[in-house]
Formats: sequence, structure tokens, C-alpha cells
Amino acid sequence: MTEPIIGLMLGDPAGIGPEQCARVLTDGRLLSLARIVVVGDARVLEQGARDAGVAVRLQRYAAPRDIDWNDSATPLIDLRNTDPATIRRGQVSAEAGRVAGETLSAMIALALAGELDGITFAPLNKAALNEGGWRFRDEHQLFAHLTGHEGPFSEMNVLDGLWMSRVTSHVSLRSALDEITGERIGEMIALADRTMRGAGLAQPRIAVAALNPHGGENGLFGREEIDIIAPAVARAVANGIGCRGPFPADTVFLKAFGGEFDGVLTMYHDQGQIATKLKGFNRGVTVTAGLRTVFTTPAHGTAFDIVGQGRATTGALEEAVRLGARLAAARRNSVSRRNSVSEV
Amino acid sequence: MTEPIIGLMLGDPAGIGPEQCARVLTDGRLLSLARIVVVGDARVLEQGARDAGVAVRLQRYAAPRDIDWNDSATPLIDLRNTDPATIRRGQVSAEAGRVAGETLSAMIALALAGELDGITFAPLNKAALNEGGWRFRDEHQLFAHLTGHEGPFSEMNVLDGLWMSRVTSHVSLRSALDEITGERIGEMIALADRTMRGAGLAQPRIAVAALNPHGGENGLFGREEIDIIAPAVARAVANGIGCRGPFPADTVFLKAFGGEFDGVLTMYHDQGQIATKLKGFNRGVTVTAGLRTVFTTPAHGTAFDIVGQGRATTGALEEAVRLGARLAAARRNSVSRRNSVSEV
Repeated sequence: MTEPIIGLMLGDPAGIGPEQCARVLTDGRLLSLARIVVVGDARVLEQGARDAGVAVRLQRYAAPRDIDWNDSATPLIDLRNTDPATIRRGQVSAEAGRVAGETLSAMIALALAGELDGITFAPLNKAALNEGGWRFRDEHQLFAHLTGHEGPFSEMNVLDGLWMSRVTSHVSLRSALDEITGERIGEMIALADRTMRGAGLAQPRIAVAALNPHGGENGLFGREEIDIIAPAVARAVANGIGCRGPFPADTVFLKAFGGEFDGVLTMYHDQGQIATKLKGFNRGVTVTAGLRTVFTTPAHGTAFDIVGQGRATTGALEEAVRLGARLAAARRNSVSRRNSVSEV
Repeated sequence: MTEPIIGLMLGDPAGIGPEQCARVLTDGRLLSLARIVVVGDARVLEQGARDAGVAVRLQRYAAPRDIDWNDSATPLIDLRNTDPATIRRGQVSAEAGRVAGETLSAMIALALAGELDGITFAPLNKAALNEGGWRFRDEHQLFAHLTGHEGPFSEMNVLDGLWMSRVTSHVSLRSALDEITGERIGEMIALADRTMRGAGLAQPRIAVAALNPHGGENGLFGREEIDIIAPAVARAVANGIGCRGPFPADTVFLKAFGGEFDGVLTMYHDQGQIATKLKGFNRGVTVTAGLRTVFTTPAHGTAFDIVGQGRATTGALEEAVRLGARLAAARRNSVSRRNSVSEV
């Protein structure tokens, strides 16, 4: 079998993740795209299966390399690291955050060892992670730390085939203004281009958003477009990247959702999030772009208000597995191509 | 007759305004809401009528006070201030901008003299106004200047019954951050409340947007929410205004468009414009709030690409007349109430 091996992480055990995962695992529609192995505590998945009203047949293994992929049971690396009976579902729990971070840490170790091609995780809770001792601004920072990453990386949101990324993220708007440099914009254009190519787009068309109202109106309302953004776009174009801009932020999404672009690079968090939330952000998938390991997750959160009711939908999680499998497969191919070339 | 007298201005004569106005004037649906008088050059309106393929029967008057409102012809104050044959339609024209500013100036004089209760104008072109010698950042600044206004005023956008206004507008994002003060936010909350009451809302429900991502996440990504915005909201509530916030900017519009609020006060231009453009901004109406004279206009622009083809729709302009009539009628009533009280 050549399908990529995707490690499925159950998400925050106090949230809807375990029941979503149980449902996705028994559905079977994803089996042609990826070999899925659950990494986590079997008891959490079993509770999720009860919540979802489905039966998941599990087969435990010590490591992914031991898995018999011809066995139709769901393979599980049982970390036995939390008892769900000690976690109150539907609320922020330090224990849930602790075990979520620990599980991700174990999965990243497996990925770095070459035993997982990618990691798809059900929704996490930032506050729980922090209370559980994993003190990072967001999970992407955590992943960068655990993969020993240096250099540019970014959250990307994929919604209806449109790839959104941003030059700055979880910082104050005032700090964002200071972080918007030509170098950073150039890195983020290149990262978006590379990631989208990795997902199978031959020549991604990327729109770059302006910073100021009306794109600065020729310097009248700010000069960042003239001094910083336009030159960065020109450099990227000279490097063969199909990007254009800067476009005024209040119309760039109309163009992009209308099909004129495959992705939009925004300058700051809310610029893109206002647009994507209005378009149905929660249906989308979040990718951590730029790291050695592929990470995908549904864009929605832990939905504490409906935990345990079996009502959680699974469309975004399924999309996350699909996209993770695509990215992981392309990466494996490019690695093996590089290896063959170097062997020649 | 007691309907308010609305001065209709044909907009930039190089744009779609004249043909829109001709169509609206022959339609007749607005006659029960307002007494409409056109102020401008008869030749421009006649050209618009030819473009629209309609016949407008005009009756010229020297001043609104002379109008015989029982005559079914369209009353016109003919300024004879431009020959449309000298203006190339469908592009930025200094002459078009010059005459647009001159016409607005004449209309404001009439309004200040009590001869017009409000002004509705077809789309203007900022670049043309500037080239024509009316050097203002936007038309609202021009109106404030010509009405001799001092104190707070603001553009408001009304879309599907939702009122959007903003604390800062056509300035760079960096300048906007410096202009966002508790005093300014308080003024803008009060202005939105007053304007919406003027349009007939008994107790407007106003959402105030946050500035930083996730509303600053309790001070982690910026302190403006804690130090500036929340206290301003609290002071407004103490003054009897039905406002709430700050709400994270990427979800506040979902709440508002969902019916939870009648208006949203945003902190900067693109915050609101990204949302409203996605929702169909061009269908909306723009109001200049806070001035002595009522000003309304369609939110869309001069649409140079379709000028003269008779294709321009008129829904937003009709909405602008309707809203102008409502605001003007309420203002006249409140003035006459104040007068009767003082006479007692």
C-alpha cells in the first residue's frame, strides 16, 4: 500500500473531537486516501464512540511500523495517558490540555522518525493547553517548537478551495504593523505558493491584500503599499510565483471567492478572518504550513456546548484528513524524487 | 403637503447618476415619501433621460420655495453650470468634479436656508472632485466644511437595515490606531445612536467591535479593549445607550447580520468594509451622520464602465431617497416639537 500514513489525534478530550473521530473511523470513506492510525488513549476514543452511537473495532500496536494494514480493525497506538472519567466534558480542563499536548508531542516524535506521514488533529482548546502546561500562543507555535523548526511557518485556512494565509497572526494590531516587512511578506508569499503546490495546484494564483483603506489611495492614506508590499510582490513575480497585488482588502475577497485567485495573503489576522468567518469558516480546514511535518485540523473549535450529544458534524474533520493525505503524499513523492535524483 | 423636501443631485455628470435620476424621477414610487426637486443643470438630466430611455417633463423654478407641488412635472432648479457636451462620460473629468462640488455647495446653501430638508446625491467621484478643485479627503469632509460643522460626524453605511459606522475612516491604519481614543469612541457611539433614532429605531442595539485579534484575548494581544473600548462602552450604557462590546471583529458581523444588533461600530475602515462588501455593500446607502443637513447617497460608485448604456440599476438610489426622507421628516418633527415647547 502506498497511501500516506496519517496519525489521527482525538483533539481535546473534553470537546467533540473523540466523537467526531469515532464517526469518521467507522465511516470508511477516507480509507482509499490514507492509512489512518489513531494515537491516544483508547478509553477516550471508546467514550467518543459511545457518544456518537457507533462501534469502533480497535487493534492496538506498539508503533505504526508494526501495523498490519490488511487488518480491517482500526489501528491504535494506545498511550494510556488519561482516564476520561477524570475529565469533565464540555469545559476547559487542565488535564485535557495536558494530555492533548503530550499526545501531540508523542505523535510529532513518530512523524520525525518517519513513522507518520502527517498528523490530523480534532479540535484543540488553547486555554486548556495553556492550563495544562503547554504555554504557546497557538498550536502552530507549539508544533514549530516540537519539530525544532527555524524559519518561516504559518497557519493557512482552506475554505471551498481558497487558501488564506497571513503575514502576521496572534499579535496586537499595533505589533502587527511593526512585523509587516518586505522580507516577511516575501517569505509568506513563497510559503503559500510552496504549500499550495504541495496540495496539487500547478501554478497557484495568489492575491496579496493591501494594508491601508483603499490600498493607501496612492500614498494618501499610508505608504506601506508603495514602499513595502508592491516591491515584495514584484520580487515574488520575478521568482516565478503567480501572485498579484496589493489589492484593497475590502474587495480582494470578492475577487478571490469569485474564482479569480486560489489564495489570499492578508496582512493581519482579522483582515482574513472577517471574510472567511462570513463565508463559513467553520467548514474549512486549517493547515500549519512550512513545518517538516504535515498538520491539518478542522477550522472549528471544541464546541463544548454540544459535547456528548452525538450531534457534532464531521465534514470539516474529513476534509482535514483528505487535505493532510494529499499534502503528505505529495511531500513523500517529492522526497523520493529528490532521493532518486541524488542516487543517479 | 408635509412630505420633506429632498434635493436630488445628479451626481458626477460623467457617471451613471444622471440616467439613474431620470429613471427614478419618472418612476413615481417615491412621490408619497418625499417632495423631490432636482438641483443641477437641466442638460445633464436630459442627457440622463436619453441614456435611460425615459422622458422627464421638467418645470424650472428659481428656488424651492417657488415650487408648485401640485404640478405633476418634475421641479428643477436649473443652475446652468455645465454643458454635458464638454464632458467625456465614463472617465474621471475635472470639469465634472468642479460642477459636482459647485452644485453641492449651492444645495447646501439652500438647505441651510431651510429650503431643502435633505440632500440625496447620485454617485460622486473623489478623484474628479479633487481635480475639479474640491480638495477634500471624501465628500463627508466636504459637507462638514460647507455646512460649517464643528464636532463629531461620520459616514454610516446602511445595508439590509444594519447600520455600520466607524471610529476612524480614510487614514492609514497606523494613524487610525492613534486616533482610536475613548472620547472618540464615545462620540461615535452617541452619534450612531442619535442617527438611528432619527431613522425611527426606538432603542438601537449597537455592537462595538474590538480592535485586536480575538478582542485582544484578555490583554495578551493588545490592551486597547481593556483600557479604551470597554470603558467607553460602559460609559455609553450608563448614558442609556443600548450598546455592547467590544466583540471580536471576526464574529461580530455574524451576530449583527443574524439580527442580534441594529448596528456595528467598527474601529477602522476595512474592518467594516470587508464585511459589508461581502454582504453586498453596493445595494446599501451611505449617510453622512452628525451634520445639520441630511445627506444620503447610494453606496456604489459612478460605474464608469456602463455609463450611457441604460443598464444602471436604481435600487440603492431609491433607498437613499427613502432613508433621506425618513431622516429629514424625523428631524423636522423634532425641530417643530422643540419650537412648540419653547413657545409654551
